Amino acid sequence: MELGLVGLGKMGGNMRERIRRAGHTVIGYDRNPDLADVHSLQELVDSLQGPRVVWVMVPAGAATQSTIDELGELLSPGDIVVDGGNSRWTDDEKHAEELAAKGIGFVDCGVSGGVWGLENGYALMYGGDAENVAKVQPVFDALKPEGDFGSVHAGKVGAGHFAKMVHNGIEYAMMQAYAEGWELLEKVESVTDVREIFRSWQEGTVIRSWLLDLAVNALDEDEHLDKLRGFAADSGEGRWTVEAAIDNAVPLPAITASLFARFSSRQEDSPQMKMIAALRNQFGGHAVESKK
Amino acid sequence: MELGLVGLGKMGGNMRERIRRAGHTVIGYDRNPDLADVHSLQELVDSLQGPRVVWVMVPAGAATQSTIDELGELLSPGDIVVDGGNSRWTDDEKHAEELAAKGIGFVDCGVSGGVWGLENGYALMYGGDAENVAKVQPVFDALKPEGDFGSVHAGKVGAGHFAKMVHNGIEYAMMQAYAEGWELLEKVESVTDVREIFRSWQEGTVIRSWLLDLAVNALDEDEHLDKLRGFAADSGEGRWTVEAAIDNAVPLPAITASLFARFSSRQEDSPQMKMIAALRNQFGGHAVESKK
Amino acid sequence: MELGLVGLGKMGGNMRERIRRAGHTVIGYDRNPDLADVHSLQELVDSLQGPRVVWVMVPAGAATQSTIDELGELLSPGDIVVDGGNSRWTDDEKHAEELAAKGIGFVDCGVSGGVWGLENGYALMYGGDAENVAKVQPVFDALKPEGDFGSVHAGKVGAGHFAKMVHNGIEYAMMQAYAEGWELLEKVESVTDVREIFRSWQEGTVIRSWLLDLAVNALDEDEHLDKLRGFAADSGEGRWTVEAAIDNAVPLPAITASLFARFSSRQEDSPQMKMIAALRNQFGGHAVESKK
Amino acid sequence: MELGLVGLGKMGGNMRERIRRAGHTVIGYDRNPDLADVHSLQELVDSLQGPRVVWVMVPAGAATQSTIDELGELLSPGDIVVDGGNSRWTDDEKHAEELAAKGIGFVDCGVSGGVWGLENGYALMYGGDAENVAKVQPVFDALKPEGDFGSVHAGKVGAGHFAKMVHNGIEYAMMQAYAEGWELLEKVESVTDVREIFRSWQEGTVIRSWLLDLAVNALDEDEHLDKLRGFAADSGEGRWTVEAAIDNAVPLPAITASLFARFSSRQEDSPQMKMIAALRNQFGGHAVESKK
Repeated sequence: MELGLVGLGKMGGNMRERIRRAGHTVIGYDRNPDLADVHSLQELVDSLQGPRVVWVMVPAGAATQSTIDELGELLSPGDIVVDGGNSRWTDDEKHAEELAAKGIGFVDCGVSGGVWGLENGYALMYGGDAENVAKVQPVFDALKPEGDFGSVHAGKVGAGHFAKMVHNGIEYAMMQAYAEGWELLEKVESVTDVREIFRSWQEGTVIRSWLLDLAVNALDEDEHLDKLRGFAADSGEGRWTVEAAIDNAVPLPAITASLFARFSSRQEDSPQMKMIAALRNQFGGHAVESKK
Repeated sequence: MELGLVGLGKMGGNMRERIRRAGHTVIGYDRNPDLADVHSLQELVDSLQGPRVVWVMVPAGAATQSTIDELGELLSPGDIVVDGGNSRWTDDEKHAEELAAKGIGFVDCGVSGGVWGLENGYALMYGGDAENVAKVQPVFDALKPEGDFGSVHAGKVGAGHFAKMVHNGIEYAMMQAYAEGWELLEKVESVTDVREIFRSWQEGTVIRSWLLDLAVNALDEDEHLDKLRGFAADSGEGRWTVEAAIDNAVPLPAITASLFARFSSRQEDSPQMKMIAALRNQFGGHAVESKK
Repeated sequence: MELGLVGLGKMGGNMRERIRRAGHTVIGYDRNPDLADVHSLQELVDSLQGPRVVWVMVPAGAATQSTIDELGELLSPGDIVVDGGNSRWTDDEKHAEELAAKGIGFVDCGVSGGVWGLENGYALMYGGDAENVAKVQPVFDALKPEGDFGSVHAGKVGAGHFAKMVHNGIEYAMMQAYAEGWELLEKVESVTDVREIFRSWQEGTVIRSWLLDLAVNALDEDEHLDKLRGFAADSGEGRWTVEAAIDNAVPLPAITASLFARFSSRQEDSPQMKMIAALRNQFGGHAVESKK
Repeated sequence: MELGLVGLGKMGGNMRERIRRAGHTVIGYDRNPDLADVHSLQELVDSLQGPRVVWVMVPAGAATQSTIDELGELLSPGDIVVDGGNSRWTDDEKHAEELAAKGIGFVDCGVSGGVWGLENGYALMYGGDAENVAKVQPVFDALKPEGDFGSVHAGKVGAGHFAKMVHNGIEYAMMQAYAEGWELLEKVESVTDVREIFRSWQEGTVIRSWLLDLAVNALDEDEHLDKLRGFAADSGEGRWTVEAAIDNAVPLPAITASLFARFSSRQEDSPQMKMIAALRNQFGGHAVESKK
C-alpha cells in the first residue's frame, strides 16, 4: 500500500525504511529537506492516491497539533490520519473529533522500539474504529516484530497511546527494580561480583527479561558504571501514567516512586532536605552541613 | 559424583531427580520415610564416601539450624555442607564458623526455579571459598539451566543467599510494576482488551520478560482475575531485602512499596485508615463509615 | 463594610455569622431560600453599594464557574469577586482574566477551619493584586483567628488556592504519619496503653500538634477505633498537590503515599494484588485465595 | 529522693540540672572528670543509700551494655537501673533479664526534649513493672513538662523505648510533610512569599504544630535556606521503626519514604540512578551525563 509519513527523525526515518523493506510505498515529508521525499505537506497529499493514509511522527504537543490541523485542511473525506508520536491520550479524542468533522478518520498508535526497532520491529498499540484500523493494518504488519506478538488493537481512540503510556510506566518501575537491587548488591562487601550475578540471572530466574539483558550489556561496557552520573530524564509518559492513576483513584506506589527518583536525580541539591536539616537543627541542635 | 540431600519436599524432590538425570548419585533423607532413601542422617552420612558433600534443603530457621548442628556432629573434616534453603544470609557466616571449627566446609546457595526447575533448570547463586565451591561444582552444573547462564559464584560465604534475596526483592517490584499497570488499564473505559495488550507486549517492547509471559498465562486462565482475591503472602526475602537496605542506607522505594502493598493486601481492614477517618471526622465533620 | 456572600452551606453560613459578629454587613444568597437573605444574585448585587465585594463560597468546578459567569454579567467595573471555595488554582487565572475583561477585580482565597472556624477563626491564604486584596482586607480580618497569625497574602492570583492546596497535602502526610505510628503501637504486645501514649505526647515532644490533640479526642471516644471502617475519602486538594508536584518535577513521596493509602482504603478488593497473587501462583505454585 | 546518673553529656547534664531544681539529690558520673560528681561507678554506687535508683544516659549499644554490666556487679538486690538512652527496644528485655537474675529491677525510658528540655521539660515514655516504675516516679515527675501531659507508663519492659522510637518515626514523616510542601511552594512562581505562608499557618489551620513553629524560626534565620546543604542524618530510631513495622507486617509508606529521602540526601551521586541512566541509554540511545 501507499503511506504518507510526516516526520523523518531517528524514529520516523527508521520506520520508513522498515515499511519499504516490507514492499510498501512510503512518501516521507520532513521540515529538513535532506531527509524528505517531498517538499511540503501539500505535495505529500498530492502524491498519494485516495483514500490516503498519513502517519504523523512528530513531537507531541504543538508540532503534532499543527500538523494535524494542516492535514485537516489538505486531506479529503475518507482519508485517515495516524498519530504515531508520543501524544498524550487525552489529545487523541480531540484530534479525532476535529478530523471527523471533515470526514477524516483518526487512529492513534503508541510505538515502542527505540534504536532496536528497524531490525527487530516496533511494538505497536493502536486505538480507533475497526474500520479505520483495518485500512492501516498493512503498515502495522510491516512495522511490528515478526513473531506472533508485538501489535494490538487496544480499544477506542486514545487506547493506543494510553496502553503505550502504561507500558512506559511499567518500564520505569522495572528499571527502578533492577537499579535498586544493583545498588544494594554493589554496597555489600561479601558480594564480590555483581556483574556476574546479573549475567547469571539471564536464565532460570523469575526476573529474566530484556531489560536485564541490557543491564548486562551496560555492565560489560562499564562494570561499576563509574563513567556515568546518576541522572535520569523522564519523558512525559511516566508523569501521565501517575496522573491517569490519580484521575482513576488507582494507587501506583512503585511506578510513582520510580518517577520521583528521577526527579530527585536531577536536583543539584534537595530543597526539601534543606528543610529537614533546618528542622533537625532547630529542635535538636543537630549539626547541619553548610553550603561551601 | 555422590551427593547427600536432606529435605525431599517439592523443591528437594525435584532437585534429586534433576541431579540424577545428570548421572550423579543422590542419597536423599527426609523425615517423611515415603520420600527418603535412607532413614536417618546417620545412615545418610554412612552411605557416602568421603570427602562428603551434603546439601541441606529444609525450611530456613530452626529446621536448617538443627540439621546443620546434627551434620556437624556426624561429618568429618574435609566434608562440605551446602545450605540450599531460603536461609537469611546473616545465618551463613554463623554456620560457616560452627562447621569450620570442626574442619567442615560450608557453601551457601540461593536457588530459584519453583515448579519449573525440574525441566528448565534452577538458577543458582552460591557463596563460599573457591576450594569448597569447586567440590560442589558438578552438582551446580547438573542443577543449572542448560544455557550459558543461570549459575554464579557470587562471593564469600553469605553472598549466595544475599544475591538470591536481592533477586526476590527485584521480583517483588517487577510484579508490582505489571500489577499496577494492569489495574490502571482495566480501569479505563476506552481500553477494551487488556489481556491482548499484555499478550502483544511479549515482543518488541522494553518490558518483555518471563514474568510478562506468566501474566499472559494467568489472564488466559481468568481474563479479569475474577476468581482470585487480592491477597499476597510474602516469604521472608522481601522483608530481608528492605532490612539489608536499611542496614546499608540504600534507598529502596519501589521494592519497599511492593512489600507494603502485600502487607496491606492481607489486612481485613486497615487500622491506620481508621485513624485517618477518625481525624477527618474530628476536624471537618467528614462522614465516617461505621463497621457493620 | 458591606459584603455579598454567595453560598450559605456549612462553611458559608458560619462565615456569615463570624463576619457579622465583627460588625460588618453581610447580604447572603443561597439557592436554598431558607438560608438566604435575598432571592437572587441580581437582588444581591442590587442590595450592595458600589464598589461591591462579592465572596463566592460554592462547590468548586461547575457551580463556581457559573456563579462567576453570572456575577460577571451583573457586577460593574471596580467591583471585586472573591473565590473562597475549594477551586483548583489553575481556574483562578482564567476567572481573573474573564472578570478583568469587564473591569472587575478578582481575589482567590483558600479557607481552612472546618467546623472549628466559627469560634476559632478561619485560616486564610489569598492571592491577587495588592489593590484588590486591600478592598477585602476588613473581611479577611474578621474571618481570621484572633492572634498574630492565620492569614496571608500568598502572592499573585492563584497563590491563595495553591497555598491552601499545599496545606492540605501536608495535612494528608501528617495524618498518615500519626496513623502509621498508631497502627504500629497497637500491634505490639508489650505496649499496653496506646491512647495514653498519644495523650502524653501532647507536651514536651517534637510531634505535638493540633492534629495530635484531635487524635486524642478520637481515641477518648473510641479507644481502639473499633466503631470505624478504615475508609478515607479524598477531597481534590491532595490529588492536585501531587499533580502540581509532577508538573514541577518535585518529588513528593510522603504526601503521595498518603494519597495512595486513601485510594487503597476505598477498594473492596485490590485488582493489582490479584495480579500479584496470580503471578506467584504461576511461577511458584503458591496458593491463592479464591473469591468466596 | 536520691538518684545516681551515669552520663553527663548534653542531655544528661541538663537532666541533672532539671532534677536538682526539683529538689532531688543527683550524684552524677561521667568518664569526663570535669563533668562528674564522683570518679567511678563504684563511688557512685557507694554514695547512694539503698534501695538505689541509677539512671543510665550513655550512647546506645556497647556503652550502655557495658555500663549495665558493670552496674549489675556493683548494685544490690532491690536496686533499680533505668536506661534513659536511645537503646533499641529489643535490648531492654535482655537487660531486664540480666539484672533480674541478680534481683535488680529495670525500667526503660525514652526521652524526648533535645535542647529545649531543661527549660520546658522532657517528654518521657517508660516501660516496666508498676512496682519498679513507682520507685522512679519522683524523677519522672521532675523531668517531665509542667502541664498535664508529657509522661506515660507505656507498658512492659521495652514499651518505653518502643513508644519513643515510634514517636521519632512519626517525627520523620511530619518533617518530610512540611519539607515537601515547602519545596513545592518555593518552586511556583505565582507564590511570592513562602515564609509568610508558613508563618500564617501557625493559627487556625489543621497543620499547626510545634514543628511548624520551628520551621518558621528556621526561615526567619535564612528565608530560602540558602546557607544549608540538603543533607540529613538519621539517628537509628527511624530505621528501627521501619524494621519493627516489617516484623509486624504493618505498612509504613510515609515514614519509610521519609527515611529513604534521608538516605538519598547523603549520597554524592546515586548508584541506582546510574543504572537507570545506563538502561535508558541501552534501549533508547538516550544521552547520559558523564562524570566530570
